[in-house]
Amino acid sequence: MKFFHIQTPDKTIGIALQTKIDLKTKPPGSLGKLESLALQIGIIQQSLTPVLSKPNVVVFAGDHGLVQEGITPYPQEVTYQMVMNFLNSGAAINVFAKQNGLEVKVVDAGVNHDFGHTENLLDYKVNKGTRNCLKEVAMTPAELTESIEKGAAIVNDLHKAGCNCIAFGEMGIGNTSSASLLMHYFTGIDLATCTGRGTGLDDAGLNKKISVLQAVAAYHGNLDNWGKIMEAFSGFEIAMMTGAMLQAAANKMVILLDGFIASTAYLAAFKLHPEIKNYIIACHQSDEKGHQLLLEYLHLSPLLNLGMRLGEGTGAAVAFPLVSAAASFLNEMASFESAGVSNKE
Amino acid sequence: MKFFHIQTPDKTIGIALQTKIDLKTKPPGSLGKLESLALQIGIIQQSLTPVLSKPNVVVFAGDHGLVQEGITPYPQEVTYQMVMNFLNSGAAINVFAKQNGLEVKVVDAGVNHDFGHTENLLDYKVNKGTRNCLKEVAMTPAELTESIEKGAAIVNDLHKAGCNCIAFGEMGIGNTSSASLLMHYFTGIDLATCTGRGTGLDDAGLNKKISVLQAVAAYHGNLDNWGKIMEAFSGFEIAMMTGAMLQAAANKMVILLDGFIASTAYLAAFKLHPEIKNYIIACHQSDEKGHQLLLEYLHLSPLLNLGMRLGEGTGAAVAFPLVSAAASFLNEMASFESAGVSNKE
Repeated sequence: MKFFHIQTPDKTIGIALQTKIDLKTKPPGSLGKLESLALQIGIIQQSLTPVLSKPNVVVFAGDHGLVQEGITPYPQEVTYQMVMNFLNSGAAINVFAKQNGLEVKVVDAGVNHDFGHTENLLDYKVNKGTRNCLKEVAMTPAELTESIEKGAAIVNDLHKAGCNCIAFGEMGIGNTSSASLLMHYFTGIDLATCTGRGTGLDDAGLNKKISVLQAVAAYHGNLDNWGKIMEAFSGFEIAMMTGAMLQAAANKMVILLDGFIASTAYLAAFKLHPEIKNYIIACHQSDEKGHQLLLEYLHLSPLLNLGMRLGEGTGAAVAFPLVSAAASFLNEMASFESAGVSNKE
Repeated sequence: MKFFHIQTPDKTIGIALQTKIDLKTKPPGSLGKLESLALQIGIIQQSLTPVLSKPNVVVFAGDHGLVQEGITPYPQEVTYQMVMNFLNSGAAINVFAKQNGLEVKVVDAGVNHDFGHTENLLDYKVNKGTRNCLKEVAMTPAELTESIEKGAAIVNDLHKAGCNCIAFGEMGIGNTSSASLLMHYFTGIDLATCTGRGTGLDDAGLNKKISVLQAVAAYHGNLDNWGKIMEAFSGFEIAMMTGAMLQAAANKMVILLDGFIASTAYLAAFKLHPEIKNYIIACHQSDEKGHQLLLEYLHLSPLLNLGMRLGEGTGAAVAFPLVSAAASFLNEMASFESAGVSNKE
């Protein structure tokens, strides 16, 4: 599989950045989390004047064979219908990205639909949905490699076009099930604790989903190999996002982390290359059960906690102005000296 | 004193708004707090297509006689220096407001400085700082009335110019002391619990501040009259903000609530006219001690909790895109029907 060269950024510049932050016309520390964000972005870019250029949100769509087991209240065709909705700018991610100045890219990672030639859809389809992981592995080793590499290629294209700040979203009916299994296998946290209501299961639906996922786990048994776990449970959209995140970190881009499913893609990336943590900004805590625990496991503290649970990258898109604000105050605020304001006595 | 006619909005339209929200292409409830915001804004404007027009942040500046007692690490002249910084667009509020499309208005409510004619500064000065409330009341009844009325006049001017969404910020060395006393007297919560580090007091400084405030409270004794409490402890910037908030609610404007000090201005407004609660959006929870308790007392749940404690309206300005996002998704997202997306089975 593709090897990603991810560097831990040199933190030396952090001293000069912190001094610059502290000399801005405000009490030290009074911008809270925006100050630590400014520090992180400055270190990533190795710059006292970091700039977020051409921010993008890439939405990966893929289908899941496990939906045959009745684990979700929406039919599978909603995945492709929502892809069309993204392309027609009708979805939440379109609205929030437009408002906040992010460009949206829509990727067919593995939707169970023949789109033919569809304008603006990035065709990186690996297969028409994963296999049913209750009965076999979701994807082959070759499909996993292909997913990772395609994700990396998409990010490289955007990076070459001048993007240095990137968010990832997803769409895929059934993909919270994939995410819960990945979380369970990669963290060791109890599977039922990792399993939530997804798009909105009632109690009976949730209990059934947990039973199905437990049967899936029983079928696959113990797996302690990264590739085997991903092949068994991942979706194409999740694996492609993992590859995309790894490449974004290798390119020293700022990565905006969305909700539960994106976080399991990040978890997989982190398990391969822990250095990726230097490039990630956790944008929001999803209301989907398991996400809070997953963020804690990853030692990430989210910018927002608004009870959202939609995916698509919406949490990252609505948080983007906060990330932008961190860079803005560092670049645009006056210092005590330049403004002629007295500092502490 | 001026009478404010604040109406409780008719909530009938909430049913049609909720239906519209639920038919958007997303699982019901999956936009969390943004959905309740959309509902609130729609009810305020009595519209299924609410629009936030010409958003403004008005920053009120005023000085405090109590600073003679050594309760703050910054000298009093920082108030007027920061006013100049606001006018020169060098402060945090300028940066965040510009980024997020809010216009900044700077008001001299009662700064202890002679600005003469200063371009773009709104001169509503009541007096050159309040009196030292350890020894007398901070302001006279006439000064309180003048402050309230001037705040209302400022908001009316903006409303006439087309603004229907307004944030309020403040600047005033020493004004966390005023705010803590107001919170204590209006809520009955223990004074030490209401008292925090302000711009950054160390432990010794905080202990001294608490002692001074306890001496102030001992000097004034029990006060159970709204006007007496405000006259004893308010700042001109706080009282003017109270008047501004009351007028904004009377005008049916969306009010963006900033941090600790703005929240005590709101508390005072709420004590006079509880109906104002329909118009308020709590934008962030400040790191200043007491703010969390105050928000709980007011039954307000903040959009952001980023450890900020700067004032100036910065919490409201950085939260504004979330408020905007609520209106945007309501207006711009496709419905299941318009997008041809299947709803729940």
